[in-house]
Amino acid sequence: MFKAIVSADTLRTTIDSVGVLVDECKIHLEEDGLAIKAVDPANVGMVDLQLSNEAFESYEADGGVIGVNLDRLESIAGMASSDQLIELELDEETRKLHIKIDGLEYTLALIDPDSIRQEPDIPDLDLPATIVVEGSDIDRAVKAADMVSDHIALGVDEDENVFYIEAEGDTDNVDLKLDTDDLIDLTAGPAHSLFSLDYLKDMNKALPKNGEVTIDLGEEFPLKLHFETAEGMGEVTYMLAPRIQSD
Amino acid sequence: MFKAIVSADTLRTTIDSVGVLVDECKIHLEEDGLAIKAVDPANVGMVDLQLSNEAFESYEADGGVIGVNLDRLESIAGMASSDQLIELELDEETRKLHIKIDGLEYTLALIDPDSIRQEPDIPDLDLPATIVVEGSDIDRAVKAADMVSDHIALGVDEDENVFYIEAEGDTDNVDLKLDTDDLIDLTAGPAHSLFSLDYLKDMNKALPKNGEVTIDLGEEFPLKLHFETAEGMGEVTYMLAPRIQSD
Amino acid sequence: MFKAIVSADTLRTTIDSVGVLVDECKIHLEEDGLAIKAVDPANVGMVDLQLSNEAFESYEADGGVIGVNLDRLESIAGMASSDQLIELELDEETRKLHIKIDGLEYTLALIDPDSIRQEPDIPDLDLPATIVVEGSDIDRAVKAADMVSDHIALGVDEDENVFYIEAEGDTDNVDLKLDTDDLIDLTAGPAHSLFSLDYLKDMNKALPKNGEVTIDLGEEFPLKLHFETAEGMGEVTYMLAPRIQSD
Repeated sequence: MFKAIVSADTLRTTIDSVGVLVDECKIHLEEDGLAIKAVDPANVGMVDLQLSNEAFESYEADGGVIGVNLDRLESIAGMASSDQLIELELDEETRKLHIKIDGLEYTLALIDPDSIRQEPDIPDLDLPATIVVEGSDIDRAVKAADMVSDHIALGVDEDENVFYIEAEGDTDNVDLKLDTDDLIDLTAGPAHSLFSLDYLKDMNKALPKNGEVTIDLGEEFPLKLHFETAEGMGEVTYMLAPRIQSD
Repeated sequence: MFKAIVSADTLRTTIDSVGVLVDECKIHLEEDGLAIKAVDPANVGMVDLQLSNEAFESYEADGGVIGVNLDRLESIAGMASSDQLIELELDEETRKLHIKIDGLEYTLALIDPDSIRQEPDIPDLDLPATIVVEGSDIDRAVKAADMVSDHIALGVDEDENVFYIEAEGDTDNVDLKLDTDDLIDLTAGPAHSLFSLDYLKDMNKALPKNGEVTIDLGEEFPLKLHFETAEGMGEVTYMLAPRIQSD
Repeated sequence: MFKAIVSADTLRTTIDSVGVLVDECKIHLEEDGLAIKAVDPANVGMVDLQLSNEAFESYEADGGVIGVNLDRLESIAGMASSDQLIELELDEETRKLHIKIDGLEYTLALIDPDSIRQEPDIPDLDLPATIVVEGSDIDRAVKAADMVSDHIALGVDEDENVFYIEAEGDTDNVDLKLDTDDLIDLTAGPAHSLFSLDYLKDMNKALPKNGEVTIDLGEEFPLKLHFETAEGMGEVTYMLAPRIQSD
């Protein structure tokens, strides 16, 4: 059983957070909210999303799992204006999701969850450095890096208490340094890892531009990006595997 | 003889209403205003437009006919800001239309009216159901239907006093139901017909999003869409042939 | 030595003025400001730009020359919001330009100035007619002309004290006439020349739409377009060779 009412804005933000990595996913309809875990086809980027039932206008569920085409769901949610309410109701027998927006009903055929790539085990890493930063700063660095390279390094300079993002191209370089005045918070530690810019660009699309993002980093370790959605009623964690450092 | 001054907004709305169906048309320059009838190359969609001389700042005509490339006229009108005035003057000898926008003069070569597809006889149908609805509701339904199918059904549920628009795709469906509270007016009657979505999408582009549209419907009969333009000084009627119902 | 701070808006306007004609250019880093001269590969259009040191928040230079890829510089400047400050600093040894925008540093490899097309000698013509006009009027005429032709005539009707822009297409014509009421200033003289519309379209992109542009014209002579940028602290002159009049 699943029946819920949610603002278009909250639904879209949720879908987008996962949709930047995968086209289809399983959604766990838990009693206390929605839960999604997914990994991209190359096993490089993962997402772990929780959306509390408190993010909904109304919410009833008893623990089922549905398989969803995220592009399709995104287009449907896109038909509502951001403050409009969207009603969701699962028909268990037909395995269809009824989506109502102000008199308009869209009946979405669900995907067999067993046909969707298995959900990842998100490793519980204890990373030495933690940076809390405005999403807009990551956005600036990622867009600038994209002008010169296809990979990007993130790290912490422990002597100077500085978080840096660097990209080296064939002729040009990009470099963003943020000290404790620029950052919301910094726990310095040994940290420097190289990542594929393509993945970070995708994740960046879903980061809150006017909100804070927590970055966990190590030396040649995966990156963790953590942020809240739905006014604190939702949580998203991305994990991105490092690239081998080249010299 | 033809000489007129009209707001860019009124001229553009007029051109667009016809331009969504055909690229060229004949314009009748009647004493009491402009009149256009046109049918698309496949004989599926027709338009009948009247624009009263009262929609113009000034208007003089004595009954001629000109042939016009609507794309071209649309681009010219597009150079004016919406509240700017556009002067139109026909040179009978050269068969050119002089179009003036604040010092800028565009001399448009007209098309021989005899080379343009013959104007349709718009059938005078007495359709059993009439629905008056906000253009924005048609817009929502057409856009949603376009996500799942290439045809769309419009009908009236006489028992429930409900106007509906439905589209059935291979896996997903779209359904808009509007009752008498949602509609501006409803005259219920036996009505259910299937239409090509492509044509309805084109007509929808010209419907007033914040104004009312009158729909006349029957059972496997053509659809009539009727609305006013130019603050009530113009009238547009579309007629769309039904598709054969498939099961 | 070169070290300067400038608003993103001023830097972008400067780059765009030259970038509409050439992809790369030499920039002279004079004590009193920047100077750029460039000619397009076909030797048809030239630009001469001066940007006074007063247009900068701070400025230090001692007469060097750098070679710059304008597309690249434009993209970098595009990362700043228009009122943000951009710091520029030349590293003489590495021949790289360090560009800083609020903590983000872009290191731009410069181009060997000797590899860039030679700077033009801008001829000092004494043209008989001078027209001062709103940039928006040139914009209107160029866009309308582009609908009918690939060349455009500019001239002065000395009897009527009228400046005109004309384009003749195969079937349609465009004609803008501006008299002394429409113009900011007019010095009438014998003037009528034909120009390539492609070049004028490019130059038009950089003209101030809400500012004045001075046009110098003769009979089958080059056109000069002159305007101020950076609130009067910069000056741009375009020169465009005429096309041979065809009949």
